[in-house]
Amino acid sequence: MIQIDYPSRSQWAELLRRPVMNIESLFDTVRDILSHVQAEGDKAVLEYERQFDHASLSSLPVTPEEMDEAEAQVSDALKEAIHLAAGNIRAFHEAQRFAGCHAQTQPGVACWQKAVPIERVGLYVPGGTAPLFSTVLMLAIPARIAGCREIVLCTPPGKDGRVNPAVLYAAHVAGVSRIFKAGGVQAIGAMAYGTQSVPKVYKIFGPGNQYVTAAKQLVSLRDVAIDMPAGPSEVAVLADGDARPDFVAADLLSQAEHGIDSQAILVTTSIPLRQAVVEEIGRQLPLLPRRDIAARSLENSKLIVAKDMDEAVELVNNYAPEHLIIQAEDYARIAKYIINAGSVFLGPYSTESAGDYASGTNHTLPTNGYARAYSGVSLDSFIRKITFQEITPEGLRRIGPAIQEMAANEHLEAHRNAVTIRMQSLNTDL
Amino acid sequence: MIQIDYPSRSQWAELLRRPVMNIESLFDTVRDILSHVQAEGDKAVLEYERQFDHASLSSLPVTPEEMDEAEAQVSDALKEAIHLAAGNIRAFHEAQRFAGCHAQTQPGVACWQKAVPIERVGLYVPGGTAPLFSTVLMLAIPARIAGCREIVLCTPPGKDGRVNPAVLYAAHVAGVSRIFKAGGVQAIGAMAYGTQSVPKVYKIFGPGNQYVTAAKQLVSLRDVAIDMPAGPSEVAVLADGDARPDFVAADLLSQAEHGIDSQAILVTTSIPLRQAVVEEIGRQLPLLPRRDIAARSLENSKLIVAKDMDEAVELVNNYAPEHLIIQAEDYARIAKYIINAGSVFLGPYSTESAGDYASGTNHTLPTNGYARAYSGVSLDSFIRKITFQEITPEGLRRIGPAIQEMAANEHLEAHRNAVTIRMQSLNTDL
Repeated sequence: MIQIDYPSRSQWAELLRRPVMNIESLFDTVRDILSHVQAEGDKAVLEYERQFDHASLSSLPVTPEEMDEAEAQVSDALKEAIHLAAGNIRAFHEAQRFAGCHAQTQPGVACWQKAVPIERVGLYVPGGTAPLFSTVLMLAIPARIAGCREIVLCTPPGKDGRVNPAVLYAAHVAGVSRIFKAGGVQAIGAMAYGTQSVPKVYKIFGPGNQYVTAAKQLVSLRDVAIDMPAGPSEVAVLADGDARPDFVAADLLSQAEHGIDSQAILVTTSIPLRQAVVEEIGRQLPLLPRRDIAARSLENSKLIVAKDMDEAVELVNNYAPEHLIIQAEDYARIAKYIINAGSVFLGPYSTESAGDYASGTNHTLPTNGYARAYSGVSLDSFIRKITFQEITPEGLRRIGPAIQEMAANEHLEAHRNAVTIRMQSLNTDL
Repeated sequence: MIQIDYPSRSQWAELLRRPVMNIESLFDTVRDILSHVQAEGDKAVLEYERQFDHASLSSLPVTPEEMDEAEAQVSDALKEAIHLAAGNIRAFHEAQRFAGCHAQTQPGVACWQKAVPIERVGLYVPGGTAPLFSTVLMLAIPARIAGCREIVLCTPPGKDGRVNPAVLYAAHVAGVSRIFKAGGVQAIGAMAYGTQSVPKVYKIFGPGNQYVTAAKQLVSLRDVAIDMPAGPSEVAVLADGDARPDFVAADLLSQAEHGIDSQAILVTTSIPLRQAVVEEIGRQLPLLPRRDIAARSLENSKLIVAKDMDEAVELVNNYAPEHLIIQAEDYARIAKYIINAGSVFLGPYSTESAGDYASGTNHTLPTNGYARAYSGVSLDSFIRKITFQEITPEGLRRIGPAIQEMAANEHLEAHRNAVTIRMQSLNTDL
């Protein structure tokens, strides 16, 4: 851990710098796999499943029998937890429904927006050591609330050709339409282009390794929308002298266990708190199963002491963290000044884990400073807002001359004529 | 014009196919210019301005004196038109303000979203034959309403080193913070990386040629967000036998005059209407100053007769047009079934030009079928929605066990521990 007291403003940029990811170097490899999937469809996906996931599959779809088996394999305790989380996620995303917006900008000129679901969406859920069934809930529940007609899920099988049962159970609870055994670049290609069994979707969501990220970026250049650019997960904890060091340490460690490239940053106004957090990390770290990963991640983590809370807030806004935990006496006041963050956790009991799993907020959030320009996944991510307008003869009389003047000045006479011809008809009709 | 009566469903895909744009072939050229701008800043931008825009500049910023001169050069009629348009655009985008959303997902678990403006945005406005001052209004007005702290505008100068006065006047009216004389790839690079005079922004908006589009895509892979992928402009007109052929023809022509790659499509249920539109185009086209461009664009335009309105609507939804004009008796009913379009114009007097300039809706819209997954530019494009949560001890007791169970099943023990340590403290405190 890197400990810095009272850094000068000129040190900030260096201090808050993230490791540069160069996934563009993977583009050539990834492009080959995508092209092969586009040309060969299922056959290519099945080949890559054998090659990369070491799974011999005869077909890609998860069958109803496999869904039943998965349900039998998930414990009652986990089912109950999944249902509680799903209920909260549903409640918060239901509250995000767009009521519509309507304005009469002039008498006879009505403009409005209407929310329409994206018809077909694709969700990617990685496999590997940790089965991310929570991500299934975070993506499929808002898709379902939005009204997406088809919700496709791709997730890699294990060597035995089976998908983790908790992932399947969560997909069932969340209302996924169809599930396919496909991982990595081949899964992204299958959803972007469509294959014999996997339908082409219009937007792809979900986390993944560098290859998946590169594949999402490449297909987003032309073929399909994606949720957002991805990077390693990160947390900033903003704490004053009143914060509990054991809570702060636990939050930093829960970020650090994600992977060696995870970022965990503490910004505090209190040197004693900083010292106590370091001690607590020393106590808690050795007890963790993933202590080796967490320890390597912590090597790059920064514990910064700022001269006051205003400066601390400014540092955090400069960093634009994916997750921000505020453990300070007047956290409600401080929250008002946060302008760059993905998701903010307020007060001693709002641990990041709550938002990762079960409070109701989404855990698909902008990393790598993207919080400066992107929101996390929400109901908005699964809809489009189409604008409509209806202009009456009176409305056209009011705005027509301005349109004619502007079109003429942009040298677009046909644009002008589309108004002229209508205005003339109104005069004739009178 | 290609006229097709009652195409079979198997013909639709071919019929609605758009020309494929391969801007990836420009990536190497564009990457070189971007790298040079990133390394050399203003010096590189000034060099490229000399090379590409044939303008010898000593510095990039537009001066207050140039702003004053521009104001003097714009006619009163155009000023009045710009103010009317600006007022309507302001009214409609003000109506899009996000009121916030709040949910208590469990007693003691409060989750909410708050809208926060993107701090710094960059707007690109092309130069060339048609000075797009309307685009300045469409981008800068919502940025201003959103509360963006810095609104940067780049636009190429003419050979005389000056920017079109209407563009400057519109920028003044719309509340742009700073204007720079820079066009093309070098302008996108300047805003993505920042130079000595141009501030780095977090999101770039605006239309441009293929090089600008390629540059926006490249910088969006890592450095900055962009409004949306771009393609040639397009309109679909959906009409029944009651539509006025002269209005329909004028709307198709106003799309066709944009450029030879513009797409104009008519889908109608009436063969007589189709025929009358063809005749009207023959009458109106020769009168247009840009008739050569429009004629070439129309060579690829399709006039399709569908067997009934249901099929016509399905065709249009399959195409997902940027602009959709519905000229049919029951346009209000038909509008309910539109699920893929950028902006929809209802009834005989709602010409596309109205939305292009002055009704209040935005004219920056998804082309190339992107309307299936993207919305047009709106107030949303200039904000982020940050999620917040506040959990009380009671809230943690309710959701804590579910978090612990889920974290354990995802093998993330530190995530579980962040809850355990808090729950233990609550028991101790009792």
